[in-house]
Amino acid sequence: MEFSSKLLEKAVNEMAQLPGIGKRTALRLVLHLLKQPSEQTHYLSQALTTMRDDVKFCKNCHNISDVEVCEICSNTSRNHKIICVVEDIRDVMAIENTNQFKGIYHVLGGKISPIDGVGPSQLNISTLVSKVKMGVIDEIIFALSSTMEGDTTNFYVYKQLKEFNVKTSTIARGIAVGDELEYADEVTLGRSIVQRVPFEISLKNN
Amino acid sequence: MEFSSKLLEKAVNEMAQLPGIGKRTALRLVLHLLKQPSEQTHYLSQALTTMRDDVKFCKNCHNISDVEVCEICSNTSRNHKIICVVEDIRDVMAIENTNQFKGIYHVLGGKISPIDGVGPSQLNISTLVSKVKMGVIDEIIFALSSTMEGDTTNFYVYKQLKEFNVKTSTIARGIAVGDELEYADEVTLGRSIVQRVPFEISLKNN
Repeated sequence: MEFSSKLLEKAVNEMAQLPGIGKRTALRLVLHLLKQPSEQTHYLSQALTTMRDDVKFCKNCHNISDVEVCEICSNTSRNHKIICVVEDIRDVMAIENTNQFKGIYHVLGGKISPIDGVGPSQLNISTLVSKVKMGVIDEIIFALSSTMEGDTTNFYVYKQLKEFNVKTSTIARGIAVGDELEYADEVTLGRSIVQRVPFEISLKNN
Repeated sequence: MEFSSKLLEKAVNEMAQLPGIGKRTALRLVLHLLKQPSEQTHYLSQALTTMRDDVKFCKNCHNISDVEVCEICSNTSRNHKIICVVEDIRDVMAIENTNQFKGIYHVLGGKISPIDGVGPSQLNISTLVSKVKMGVIDEIIFALSSTMEGDTTNFYVYKQLKEFNVKTSTIARGIAVGDELEYADEVTLGRSIVQRVPFEISLKNN
């Protein structure tokens, strides 16, 4: 792509480094900014820089926060003895939206993925282990994605925690609410039969 | 969407103002920046702000440029008597990539679209008319998109130029090179038959 302006080219190249944004999309976005009042670009740049420089991670659960300990961890009405282990902060937001979980979280910050060069040492695993070691945790709920990397991470963390005799569980896998059986994959359908729940319990959760 | 950090929320909201970027995508992009070294965010913000503040538009053709008159307009080896009228600078880049056009451009900066509140007065039409008025232009080539708005704009500009007796043409509409006839729409196929070209000419352009 040949640009008539070096400034434009630089802006497009920087924009195109974001994941899922190619050069063409980047050019479209940058040209859009050019058509808008210059304040919009200033606000965007300012918001990104301030966020990058000033955002903190909760020192307890590693969730993103503006203060040292996040709102969830500092909320005394929540059950601090049940920890839900998730991959990243988007999962915290998703689970919080369900209003079904009143414990606290532990954000690993990714999953073990040798292809992407992510090993266990890059994840927040040791802090979880030391929390469990202290013996005050009742249950660890694994809420990781059901992929190769998610399962690997799950198993790795599980092995680290095994010796402390803490109760562990994973979120249920099964047919999504509203889904039709005939379109479900066999593994999920099979697991949903093996791990069936008493009908009275299924009524409760509605 | 509930955010655990106001800074994150602000960054996501600003990002989500870009066209085609929803809140979820914005969150993904912002979290990506958080995982990268902070320099990347600084470079991006800097590039966007500098571009927005310092970029110029060529005073001759309205193309984006770092100087007062763009490289194309200041290139004396190009034919300044043939002007190709395009919608925006992406079209200039696309035509330049073909290496088939050695005239200069005129960037309208959009198309007439009452729905989006864009009237003829917001486009760079008057400067084109005054160029033609001076009587030094041999040909105006319209290279606008073949949509309702593109055709309207084309016709409007054509009417403005008519009285000056300048030669006008539009880029050829037809079956794209590599396309199969059976999948072409009827209007395009019909037009490609009516506006057929001598076979010898079609050979020349390969």
